[in-house]
Amino acid sequence: MPNPADLNEDEKTWETVFRTAAALERTRQLELSRVGIRLPQAAILHFLGTSREPLTPVKLSRLIHKKRHTITALVHRMEAQGLVSTEKDMARKNWLRVSLTKKGKAAFRRQLSERTAMNITACLSRQEVATLNRIMRKLYLATDEMRREMEPSPYDHLLRL
Amino acid sequence: MPNPADLNEDEKTWETVFRTAAALERTRQLELSRVGIRLPQAAILHFLGTSREPLTPVKLSRLIHKKRHTITALVHRMEAQGLVSTEKDMARKNWLRVSLTKKGKAAFRRQLSERTAMNITACLSRQEVATLNRIMRKLYLATDEMRREMEPSPYDHLLRL
Repeated sequence: MPNPADLNEDEKTWETVFRTAAALERTRQLELSRVGIRLPQAAILHFLGTSREPLTPVKLSRLIHKKRHTITALVHRMEAQGLVSTEKDMARKNWLRVSLTKKGKAAFRRQLSERTAMNITACLSRQEVATLNRIMRKLYLATDEMRREMEPSPYDHLLRL
Repeated sequence: MPNPADLNEDEKTWETVFRTAAALERTRQLELSRVGIRLPQAAILHFLGTSREPLTPVKLSRLIHKKRHTITALVHRMEAQGLVSTEKDMARKNWLRVSLTKKGKAAFRRQLSERTAMNITACLSRQEVATLNRIMRKLYLATDEMRREMEPSPYDHLLRL
């Protein structure tokens, strides 16, 4: 069988980044469970709560980096829970516009009250934080390019990320 | 409503890290879908494929940073697909030992054949890679400590991470 020692430097780094991201995600999930919010919902609440206008499932799926049908199913579950409302777009009749309900806004405020995990980089020096941001932005651009090659989308030109 | 501009420097960094991790994960998922493997399975295949001995669901859940019942359900689905086999531990009768079947080993080899996303940090200088590793390890330790405070586990002392 292959051995972890066979991984090159980049692949070992990948493992380290993934392990850390998974640990961060789990900790955030534990924190949000105190206010009755699950992580996939939290992403929807966040983007709707900080957007000036309703968002489509397509836009949400691009922001959250999940498949469109995963997001559509999640939006419909959240609609059944009374957290979001959807409205057909008049101009493009098969596009939905999703926005927060009053209950959804309250959930978003509860979410914002739990921020310990979000401040995890307080353990780093300010210079390390700046470096981390710079490296993450580089990786994001490289990943986004790789993703577009693997999955060309007719919507790419409509989405400013 | 709160505004993203209300986020402090650490919280904005959190967003950037999360956005990048989600993009990395999505790209890896697209890559693995070419060889018929889904991301949650990939983590199980990876840890079983690189371990010298069978692993318990508890150990897998700690390595993968997912809830124990999520991992147990996943292991049972993978067992039904013929990818892993489970065996009761003789010493602790309610512990399962999970290992790869022949079909699981073949899936792990297919997974190792797809490594483009895993090499994403090839776009960074070697010094940036070293810095990224150092920062990620710091964040991992801080997160793990935070997680233990939120979710003390009777197994913590049994698990060397």
